[in-house]
Amino acid sequence: MSIALPNLEQIRDAAARIAPHAILTPVLRNAALDALAGAHLYFKCENLQRGGAFKFRGACNAVWSLSDDEARCGVVTHSSGNHGNALAMAASTRGIAAHVIVPEGAVRAKVEAIEQAGAVLHRCAPTNAAREAMAAEVQQATGAIMVHPYADTRVMAGQGTVVLELLHQSGGLDAIVTPVGGGGLMAGCAVAAHGLLPNIAMFGAEPAGASDAAQSLAQGARIEHFVPATICDGLRALVGEPNLAALREHHVAVITVSDEETIAAMRLLWQSLKLVVEVSSATVLAAVLKQPERFAGRRVGLVLTGGNVDVDALPW
Amino acid sequence: MSIALPNLEQIRDAAARIAPHAILTPVLRNAALDALAGAHLYFKCENLQRGGAFKFRGACNAVWSLSDDEARCGVVTHSSGNHGNALAMAASTRGIAAHVIVPEGAVRAKVEAIEQAGAVLHRCAPTNAAREAMAAEVQQATGAIMVHPYADTRVMAGQGTVVLELLHQSGGLDAIVTPVGGGGLMAGCAVAAHGLLPNIAMFGAEPAGASDAAQSLAQGARIEHFVPATICDGLRALVGEPNLAALREHHVAVITVSDEETIAAMRLLWQSLKLVVEVSSATVLAAVLKQPERFAGRRVGLVLTGGNVDVDALPW
Repeated sequence: MSIALPNLEQIRDAAARIAPHAILTPVLRNAALDALAGAHLYFKCENLQRGGAFKFRGACNAVWSLSDDEARCGVVTHSSGNHGNALAMAASTRGIAAHVIVPEGAVRAKVEAIEQAGAVLHRCAPTNAAREAMAAEVQQATGAIMVHPYADTRVMAGQGTVVLELLHQSGGLDAIVTPVGGGGLMAGCAVAAHGLLPNIAMFGAEPAGASDAAQSLAQGARIEHFVPATICDGLRALVGEPNLAALREHHVAVITVSDEETIAAMRLLWQSLKLVVEVSSATVLAAVLKQPERFAGRRVGLVLTGGNVDVDALPW
Repeated sequence: MSIALPNLEQIRDAAARIAPHAILTPVLRNAALDALAGAHLYFKCENLQRGGAFKFRGACNAVWSLSDDEARCGVVTHSSGNHGNALAMAASTRGIAAHVIVPEGAVRAKVEAIEQAGAVLHRCAPTNAAREAMAAEVQQATGAIMVHPYADTRVMAGQGTVVLELLHQSGGLDAIVTPVGGGGLMAGCAVAAHGLLPNIAMFGAEPAGASDAAQSLAQGARIEHFVPATICDGLRALVGEPNLAALREHHVAVITVSDEETIAAMRLLWQSLKLVVEVSSATVLAAVLKQPERFAGRRVGLVLTGGNVDVDALPW
């Protein structure tokens, strides 16, 4: 079954649906970073979103898109990261159950956060097959509705609300950069941005050690097997099928950055912007600083995707 | 010569005067910290202010309060910290000179930042006498106007604009907590808060190792000699004469906190609020967590004063 991309209307509906629950995050500017980049940078602070990541938008839209009858049995997903936590929080805003499938070996702090957010945890072996088998089992046993982390129309629509806010708050942009992992954020943002400004340039930032999206675009077919090797724990997922289609359709240019470049950009964001952002978020600034000629003198929106990081263990 | 406190009208004038230059900083909320404190916390993020600290407000108001004739010869201050940097930035918005007197031994990174902001540096020995002699000399030689870091009506009025914004953004509060160093922020905030809400409770947070304000209030007279011993580099100054008068007049309750309590609160702010705040800023959360009975169930504004910290050297 092919999963449809959302349209602008669905993203606007998502914005109305999540408004009572999500935070309208600020957009920050910084003279020192502008000077360094040679561009006008607008940082959309999703690290300040509920749960510390943009993921709450998509999860919340999915949960509140359900009819009462569908919602009754709760929702289920497989994610030991920000999406699992976001879905648990979103489910709690509607008073329904969230089942989260967690592979053995997942980061304990993240799993604890998901549990604290009220989810029912289901442990499985750390393989795709085990994860999918467990998901099917939980759906069968509970009737819960699957909310995929990125290959889901409602989730992509929710993530696209970032751009509706960013364009309004900035007063207009020439380009937008978001990280690319599974591609849910990128897909929603591209649809929203081109729906409002057909000529805006869209860029994805991808770790060199998880550059399946860049390679899939280059070779004209989706890579289905790839072993990621990057410090960016939020960007290790393979880009989804509908997500890759969105990247193609919206002419997204993917810039790959090394972990060293990303860590340096992360440190700059902490030091100059005074924000705690997680390493995956810093890929966007690393990308702008790596290819400054593509952004010179332009108004560039950068989505800082999250701030869920262990402040006792900094990577620099 | 006694220095007058500003009135509400002067604080409103200051708000209009600095509006073209200062950032309207966001107010953040956090469910986890609310639960921990048992109160409704509203964090005013002056770490996101221009220059990374609230100090820009007072400096900017002082600079733009001058007549063209007064402004011609520039401004001068003695501060190797956030005020020196703020005054340099404020002077540059008006295209006038800023002279900053820097004692030998000041933190090199801060001094470099002041120089980068365009100030003329004047070095002196690290004593009050040398500082004042150098200030007099610079005023004599250049005709520059002195802008004291906190015992200055224009500076206090500028700092008070924090509360005009905070009360508007929060929709009303029962209490406000700010750190107390020289007392410029506390004085301006107390006047603004009581001008708008006569019954709001005002609290100061002071490091136990620099508790001259608490002791001065307790003994009924201003302590004039005190050797501070605290990690909170922004709060080592003795509370000023007019500033102490403001604390008395506005019934400010000062809560003292240990450096350990402050460092733990700083870590909490980084981890939960996703903000880089400097250690002095964290005294406000430490104070609320130390005496929760004074804040239970109330709407409490906390001013996070700055974010100028070396991210390579965290105190935990």
